[in-house]
Amino acid sequence: MTTEQSVLERIERARLRKARVKEERVTLAHGAGGKATQTLVEDVFVDAFRNPHLEAMTDGATLTLNGTRTVFTTDTFVVSPLFFPGGDIGDLAVNGTVNDLAVCGARPMYLSAGFVLEEGFPVADLRRIAASMSAAAAAAGVAVVTGDTKVVERGKADGCYVNTAGIGVLERDVTLGAAAVRAGDAVLVSGPIGEHGVTIMLARGELDIEADLASDTAPLHEPVAALLDAVPGGVRVLRDATRGGVATVLNEIAQAVRLGVVLDEAAIPVAPVVNGACELLGIDPLYVACEGRFVAVVDGEHADAALAALRGHPLGQGAAIVGHVADEPAGTVLLKTSFGGTRIVDMLVGDPLPRIC
Amino acid sequence: MTTEQSVLERIERARLRKARVKEERVTLAHGAGGKATQTLVEDVFVDAFRNPHLEAMTDGATLTLNGTRTVFTTDTFVVSPLFFPGGDIGDLAVNGTVNDLAVCGARPMYLSAGFVLEEGFPVADLRRIAASMSAAAAAAGVAVVTGDTKVVERGKADGCYVNTAGIGVLERDVTLGAAAVRAGDAVLVSGPIGEHGVTIMLARGELDIEADLASDTAPLHEPVAALLDAVPGGVRVLRDATRGGVATVLNEIAQAVRLGVVLDEAAIPVAPVVNGACELLGIDPLYVACEGRFVAVVDGEHADAALAALRGHPLGQGAAIVGHVADEPAGTVLLKTSFGGTRIVDMLVGDPLPRIC
Repeated sequence: MTTEQSVLERIERARLRKARVKEERVTLAHGAGGKATQTLVEDVFVDAFRNPHLEAMTDGATLTLNGTRTVFTTDTFVVSPLFFPGGDIGDLAVNGTVNDLAVCGARPMYLSAGFVLEEGFPVADLRRIAASMSAAAAAAGVAVVTGDTKVVERGKADGCYVNTAGIGVLERDVTLGAAAVRAGDAVLVSGPIGEHGVTIMLARGELDIEADLASDTAPLHEPVAALLDAVPGGVRVLRDATRGGVATVLNEIAQAVRLGVVLDEAAIPVAPVVNGACELLGIDPLYVACEGRFVAVVDGEHADAALAALRGHPLGQGAAIVGHVADEPAGTVLLKTSFGGTRIVDMLVGDPLPRIC
Repeated sequence: MTTEQSVLERIERARLRKARVKEERVTLAHGAGGKATQTLVEDVFVDAFRNPHLEAMTDGATLTLNGTRTVFTTDTFVVSPLFFPGGDIGDLAVNGTVNDLAVCGARPMYLSAGFVLEEGFPVADLRRIAASMSAAAAAAGVAVVTGDTKVVERGKADGCYVNTAGIGVLERDVTLGAAAVRAGDAVLVSGPIGEHGVTIMLARGELDIEADLASDTAPLHEPVAALLDAVPGGVRVLRDATRGGVATVLNEIAQAVRLGVVLDEAAIPVAPVVNGACELLGIDPLYVACEGRFVAVVDGEHADAALAALRGHPLGQGAAIVGHVADEPAGTVLLKTSFGGTRIVDMLVGDPLPRIC
């Protein structure tokens, strides 16, 4: 047995054990979207609320209401700072939930908005956030139809947290999910990765870098629709690559179907400024959140048509085929590096970029 | 013109002016559910998100999805303390959203759950909250089908905030809303008021009182269904009396239809311990939140049948007819006191009981 096989088998055994939160207290990593989040969700929430919708661990639950196939999803936004180049917590909260619906194949229709405000928060900032949500909702063709506002004492929140839940309707006869993924499928990303996360880091002023970079926050229902229409029946699964980044999304897919995902580093679109900032921070762009990019796994035979469909939409013009699905290594994401080597891309551990969304 | 008429007319003129937030910063009163909340919501959110669903200012939005009449609602819970006699933030979050669906006439079906956790929050407490949510969901016949977890740094939240959004289906051919209210209608409450709010105050230890009192948190879809079935076509509007209490709910109804609501103080069910605590605190039980009581306005001819239907359910056995709707004083709630006088019961101003739910 080679050393690499032995490492893979140990990783594999660890993964098959029941998820169990070992920490006594919640850490930032539990909110990072990676391994710790997955463990917390599986051990605490899926175990408590046990039902097939939740166990599917997708971005939204597909429900049938009187015969209408409906998708329901929720997301809370705690991004810091609240305003950043390219957007703010308002459009982020709208686009984030629109995108969770879109990658489930649904047409986004209605949103709720729940605010937790800190006493002393400027009303002018709240107006700015509401205006931004309104513009984002109009752009995405959704309506904010119900809401709630709570206020907590000074020091008990950080300005403003926003929850959005969303309802969409499945108009196409399509079932998306990791279960459909097969060896030979192609892996695409809809555009350059990591721009949202790096923008937030720069906006915090923690790095002494001036860069011409903006968040990629955008509604993805149109490029998703273009893709689904271009290769009907050929799309296996779609995921927006938010917390934990592309690496985490692909690990979740690989683990769900016990197949391997092999990425070609040279093919992954990353803006030079994102690469540069990630080098300074010592993090891998594959783990950095996007808020307007998605990962698509499509039938390998339709890869070129899928790519063309994505590139035909302004929000997909930077799309690329970045890898493929293989039988081995089962449940693992491998990266073929630009230097000709390979390395395992595991799930995100810890939280290098807290409160990115 | 009598002095009382003059006061009423001035109140009336003030009410007809466009809602406008005058404060530069958010105050606790903006989250209290009373006048300041109404102004904030109308001025900032309804203005930004302008659509007929939101403008209805009901507990949930009624949507038609492919012909299915669906109700969608959201609520965030920031109650302090998290655990209290009779419940915790978990069952409160489930029952609160179940009740918002129920009072819209819908059968509650699916919930989302969004958590904001403070770094350092005990995982054991989170398990306890999840278990409580699970039990409450089972009791209410709903499933928690989608969720999200965010973690913020120590000091940026207060342990745990929970958002729940909910979807229900309108199975009855019923349209509930303040618009249907007529002079001569009867006003009922489904049980003794103010027990949740006073329980929270006592649990904070701010009053030196030992009292045998528990939150009234409970799912209301069954007593609501019993009422709707008992007087088909006779129920005008239902509202759960949470933040701002019964007084705020009735003011919103009175203002919406420009009619008067006349309450009989002696008929309002209030537990002696709630009355006692309210006297010590200098607040009126009519403004104290319930989490398992609702207000019903029904056709006066069906008042006794409605009361009997409510009393036939364990969660409505303390129901009472507490007043009636009259042409005058338009847009105002009047209380006939036990001493034979009358006083105006205005909307809640300020926030005597912050973070009650």
